[in-house]
Amino acid sequence: MNDHVYKHIELTGTSADGIEAAVGNALAVAALSVRHMRWLEVIDTRAHIEGGRVDQWQVTVRIAFTVES
Amino acid sequence: MNDHVYKHIELTGTSADGIEAAVGNALAVAALSVRHMRWLEVIDTRAHIEGGRVDQWQVTVRIAFTVES
Amino acid sequence: MNDHVYKHIELTGTSADGIEAAVGNALAVAALSVRHMRWLEVIDTRAHIEGGRVDQWQVTVRIAFTVES
Amino acid sequence: MNDHVYKHIELTGTSADGIEAAVGNALAVAALSVRHMRWLEVIDTRAHIEGGRVDQWQVTVRIAFTVES
Amino acid sequence: MNDHVYKHIELTGTSADGIEAAVGNALAVAALSVRHMRWLEVIDTRAHIEGGRVDQWQVTVRIAFTVES
Amino acid sequence: MNDHVYKHIELTGTSADGIEAAVGNALAVAALSVRHMRWLEVIDTRAHIEGGRVDQWQVTVRIAFTVES
Amino acid sequence: MNDHVYKHIELTGTSADGIEAAVGNALAVAALSVRHMRWLEVIDTRAHIEGGRVDQWQVTVRIAFTVES
Amino acid sequence: MNDHVYKHIELTGTSADGIEAAVGNALAVAALSVRHMRWLEVIDTRAHIEGGRVDQWQVTVRIAFTVES
Amino acid sequence: MNDHVYKHIELTGTSADGIEAAVGNALAVAALSVRHMRWLEVIDTRAHIEGGRVDQWQVTVRIAFTVES
Amino acid sequence: MNDHVYKHIELTGTSADGIEAAVGNALAVAALSVRHMRWLEVIDTRAHIEGGRVDQWQVTVRIAFTVES
Amino acid sequence: MNDHVYKHIELTGTSADGIEAAVGNALAVAALSVRHMRWLEVIDTRAHIEGGRVDQWQVTVRIAFTVES
Amino acid sequence: MNDHVYKHIELTGTSADGIEAAVGNALAVAALSVRHMRWLEVIDTRAHIEGGRVDQWQVTVRIAFTVES
Repeated sequence: MNDHVYKHIELTGTSADGIEAAVGNALAVAALSVRHMRWLEVIDTRAHIEGGRVDQWQVTVRIAFTVES
Repeated sequence: MNDHVYKHIELTGTSADGIEAAVGNALAVAALSVRHMRWLEVIDTRAHIEGGRVDQWQVTVRIAFTVES
Repeated sequence: MNDHVYKHIELTGTSADGIEAAVGNALAVAALSVRHMRWLEVIDTRAHIEGGRVDQWQVTVRIAFTVES
Repeated sequence: MNDHVYKHIELTGTSADGIEAAVGNALAVAALSVRHMRWLEVIDTRAHIEGGRVDQWQVTVRIAFTVES
Repeated sequence: MNDHVYKHIELTGTSADGIEAAVGNALAVAALSVRHMRWLEVIDTRAHIEGGRVDQWQVTVRIAFTVES
Repeated sequence: MNDHVYKHIELTGTSADGIEAAVGNALAVAALSVRHMRWLEVIDTRAHIEGGRVDQWQVTVRIAFTVES
Repeated sequence: MNDHVYKHIELTGTSADGIEAAVGNALAVAALSVRHMRWLEVIDTRAHIEGGRVDQWQVTVRIAFTVES
Repeated sequence: MNDHVYKHIELTGTSADGIEAAVGNALAVAALSVRHMRWLEVIDTRAHIEGGRVDQWQVTVRIAFTVES
Repeated sequence: MNDHVYKHIELTGTSADGIEAAVGNALAVAALSVRHMRWLEVIDTRAHIEGGRVDQWQVTVRIAFTVES
Repeated sequence: MNDHVYKHIELTGTSADGIEAAVGNALAVAALSVRHMRWLEVIDTRAHIEGGRVDQWQVTVRIAFTVES
Repeated sequence: MNDHVYKHIELTGTSADGIEAAVGNALAVAALSVRHMRWLEVIDTRAHIEGGRVDQWQVTVRIAFTVES
Repeated sequence: MNDHVYKHIELTGTSADGIEAAVGNALAVAALSVRHMRWLEVIDTRAHIEGGRVDQWQVTVRIAFTVES
């Protein structure tokens, strides 16, 4: 295997539609400035409540991407 | 910002339909006795298994609500 | 209650369809060799990224089953 | 399974007689105001020392009970 | 020592003035409904930022009080 | 010292009689299929509640045994 | 609520004057290059000792700011 | 209250008779060289296995005692 | 750099005046018997409550000092 | 990607030669009964001491392998 | 001491040669874009397995560097 | 087995040569004042960076030794 180096960044994505959608939104924003994203880890799952119901999921992920050296 | 004080309660909601639905059921019961719920944090995700399949998701959340002083 | 003893095994299930589906796939494979599974706990949620989007959820679960003595 | 919701409370029970007795005392007090307790988890075990010996075990438990909705 | 039982509650107090003041505000609100508070443990220290500066400390504490049986 | 390799398994033993008895029951079942057990670590202590009292201790242990190579 | 995405950065601020001042110094430096900071979490509190006294508090914070997409 | 300072030491006590007895043995040895012990916290519970049974409980405690200044 | 070895000790300092003052009191007592203290880490922040207010902060620190060999 | 399922096992490898060698010994024994090992995670590093020196490193790893379904 | 502010970044370095070499590779890549690196902390040690042997160590480090303000 | 009691001490050893060498240096200094050391656990691995390279590994270990009573 190549001796790649990966950098990790941490983002919180949000969505009314659920946990997977919130993660997807985080990735969509990260993809605007980062290339070669490889994997992510969910490290925190929260939600905002309005009127006794979840109106926004807030999921924090740690994303790893290959550093081009 | 106002110097609000928030109280936290911990509930386990259950549902056959998935993680988000289990959280929703926890909130629905909490809303019967608590007002001004603001946010929640998922702290444990478990499931009961029957016949080799998940038949009930069990999701524990910590819910924060404003204390009216 | 009977003084059952439970054994725990740890599996990572994967799926493009979401967290619950990845857990279901882990259980389907476990059911080929283990009987009497009772409950599970999600202990890690990761995903593989391809083209800036999640293409595979990877969910690690700890499964408990009754040991027949 | 019914989609029950469980609430969690946290208590510290104390006893000179040992860990199990301290937990039993916590439950006895909880039973005065809470019904339908289902399970508990030990989350901290401490003791007070007097004259170089334990004179009181202090065991903190998280108790789950069914919420009647 | 008496075999007291202690109950724990979790609150987030807030203040612009610092960590100790935020804890004090949490206690002031708790004292409106709880008697015989004995000790607390700081379990989370956060802050809200406005204009590049902290404008509100948010400190979560676990408070223990004697249950009168 | 010999360069032994140890494998770890995780079991939950149960008993009405207390924490040590629940661990003993886990070992008794493990001994039916595993030889050369060396040490264990308690990693979770729970209990089932019935009628306001503990009716079953549930103690999860990680057991290490020598692998014969 | 808007589906904002937040990025997290981690800084250690230092000050002879106390914990809150060390956090303030971290924010002041972060504000030179980051806009729209929203909240922070204290994740480590250390101090350097000189002559038997604290001469510098070292407080590590995780800061969240809105990503403009 | 007096502004006491407490020092913490960490010991592992052992006993064939159970968890509480192992803690008692740790205290008995500590009492030979330390005075004014006030409280302890159990931080690890292990056991040595011989012939498929526990033959020695090994309980690690953190003991706090008043420092005489 | 020299290959120094550092030893760690753990103390709880107390003060009515706040978190930093409690740490300062722990250091003042430690300095009576330990030289060459280099850094500390706050590992627990608690408080004693009297009359609904904090009357004593109790801060546990891990202090590192150079061992003279 | 294929929806593989991975199983995790936990082993402690030992060696006088260092941390990497202890991990290698754990893998060598695991390879006698497990095929398709993919990755491992170091979860605990300990050592046995004899005559004031390390005479055996003891490294616990969690190994993941593909389950053939 | 100067009131420096440090920023933390997280990288995974890889190497077939061992843990220290993997850390060295992470630093070599980080040094291409970051100056004034001061210290690092190892936060995760993993390895890729091929043919029953480690063929690549994967070590995640948190690196702190001085922010020039 | 004899009912030994073990005391734990925590040291940070340093070395330019790697993780195992830093642990060895910690033991060498500990051996000057402590006898009957039995085992150790690595609890933190850090390094100082100079010129973009590790110039000193800093490994913190918890060492257990038999207390002679």
